[in-house]
Amino acid sequence: MALAGGVGAAKLVWGLAQEGLGSRLSVVVNTGDDLETFGLRICPDLDTITYTLAGLSNQTWGWGIEGDTFRCLKALGRLGADTWFGLGDQDLATHLWRTSLLNRGWGLAAVTAHICKGFGIESSVLPMAEGYNPTLVETDAGRLHLQEYLVREKCAPRVHGFEYTGLSRQRAAPGVEKVIRKARVIVICPSNPFISVGPILSVPGIRRAVVESRGLVVAVSPIVGGRALKGPAAKMLRELGHPVSAEGVARIYRGLLDVFVLDERDASSAASIERLGVRVVVRNTVMDTSGAKRELARALLRLA
Amino acid sequence: MALAGGVGAAKLVWGLAQEGLGSRLSVVVNTGDDLETFGLRICPDLDTITYTLAGLSNQTWGWGIEGDTFRCLKALGRLGADTWFGLGDQDLATHLWRTSLLNRGWGLAAVTAHICKGFGIESSVLPMAEGYNPTLVETDAGRLHLQEYLVREKCAPRVHGFEYTGLSRQRAAPGVEKVIRKARVIVICPSNPFISVGPILSVPGIRRAVVESRGLVVAVSPIVGGRALKGPAAKMLRELGHPVSAEGVARIYRGLLDVFVLDERDASSAASIERLGVRVVVRNTVMDTSGAKRELARALLRLA
Repeated sequence: MALAGGVGAAKLVWGLAQEGLGSRLSVVVNTGDDLETFGLRICPDLDTITYTLAGLSNQTWGWGIEGDTFRCLKALGRLGADTWFGLGDQDLATHLWRTSLLNRGWGLAAVTAHICKGFGIESSVLPMAEGYNPTLVETDAGRLHLQEYLVREKCAPRVHGFEYTGLSRQRAAPGVEKVIRKARVIVICPSNPFISVGPILSVPGIRRAVVESRGLVVAVSPIVGGRALKGPAAKMLRELGHPVSAEGVARIYRGLLDVFVLDERDASSAASIERLGVRVVVRNTVMDTSGAKRELARALLRLA
Repeated sequence: MALAGGVGAAKLVWGLAQEGLGSRLSVVVNTGDDLETFGLRICPDLDTITYTLAGLSNQTWGWGIEGDTFRCLKALGRLGADTWFGLGDQDLATHLWRTSLLNRGWGLAAVTAHICKGFGIESSVLPMAEGYNPTLVETDAGRLHLQEYLVREKCAPRVHGFEYTGLSRQRAAPGVEKVIRKARVIVICPSNPFISVGPILSVPGIRRAVVESRGLVVAVSPIVGGRALKGPAAKMLRELGHPVSAEGVARIYRGLLDVFVLDERDASSAASIERLGVRVVVRNTVMDTSGAKRELARALLRLA
């Protein structure tokens, strides 16, 4: 099973599904990046994982649907609405259908399973929790909703910290703890430790389930050569006073990991990470081709 | 000012605006055909009037936006959602923005004014009331939401009656009673008397405002030659035991009207309608061209 954020995680999750896991793969996805706007519940990380597993994701951006149009969003702009958050016309259908089912009293886990079935996805995609608990980012420009920080402000403001609103009063979504406890391998995807994996591990019960699981806990570094492959992970590490390196990430996950997967470019850090009590595996972790995604997935499956 | 339903009314309202009323025109629109679906508040009659005044309405159907696409709706269908209610991609923007503003605590009248401003509309478009009070249709196939009856069931079930849900506990939207009381002419558009004009006149205070207004109350017949130009008005008159004629409609509005505008084809009914105590004006009321719309509007303005 995998703990996943959005675009970076989706590449690895896709590789795992392709490498034969298919219906045996469960993915627990961050919902701390959820957004409520225009009356809709939008779950960007869930949708990125879903669209990727369905083979529909936009290959350029990683998010959204390939070939989608933005006629509704343009019309919203003409009416005077804020349109900084990208909403494709086909993508909107997912948000409308999700909102509709939630309004009928369905839980987010059931809604997600139903949507995945609609897309013909064999793997099990689970939200970490069912409530709306957006991550707030404390910045020089004030406290921002995560999507305001990421999309509207393009990650420019300096970050001081995070608040996972209301998460401590949530429970893991139905099925999540069980899936973690019975997993042979728990993959922490190469996602942002603060805004993707952090919220997942902050849902009451999830961290303990990871610690108590007999499965091998493997994290793939989201930092390669001192940089994040995507998103603000490196900038956040720096602004929060962590080492901007794979080792910086390994330290954050300390106490949780059996194995840390390091990119070949960072092989020289292996020894110091191993001193944290973690086994280090060195691989190519830059998943810029289908082959690279599948190869990394195969390497992780061989660890089990 | 005009009391208006959807497509038929929109033609006349457009004519009135073109004939120089522009910013002096107020239109009070039925919201008994509103629909809540996919978490959105949809106001088909309001939108038809708005799109028509903005010059955007689909010329073939009368509703929706000319040249709109349906990519979102198709994607909803693939996810397993009911898609019998037409939602164009640009049209969706109106529903999303309306829902968004309502969720922020705006009233429907303020939202409508804001949307009209966005579309550059000079005339004042007012919802009859601000709540969600859908008309239910009692039929052989059970009690249906008006849009289920109109769109999903294509008006096929036999009608026994109507319920204007909760309307008796509503108030007219801000501005509505004042606009009616100070009008020089109150035009009851050629709309369905049961499902378009009926709900408007059932909003507490509106019928009394029409009766007490010093303005001339003029209704244009929606029935021409025993047929409705659009929609189920004739079928409903028949199924409810009314004469299927312009006179049948005039009888429903008895006590309210100063003038009844009859189509040339029904000129022979003039005498019997005048016996109801209503002045009859005979004109071409079939607004199949821009010229015909403007000509009828001019005739009404000359009555003032």
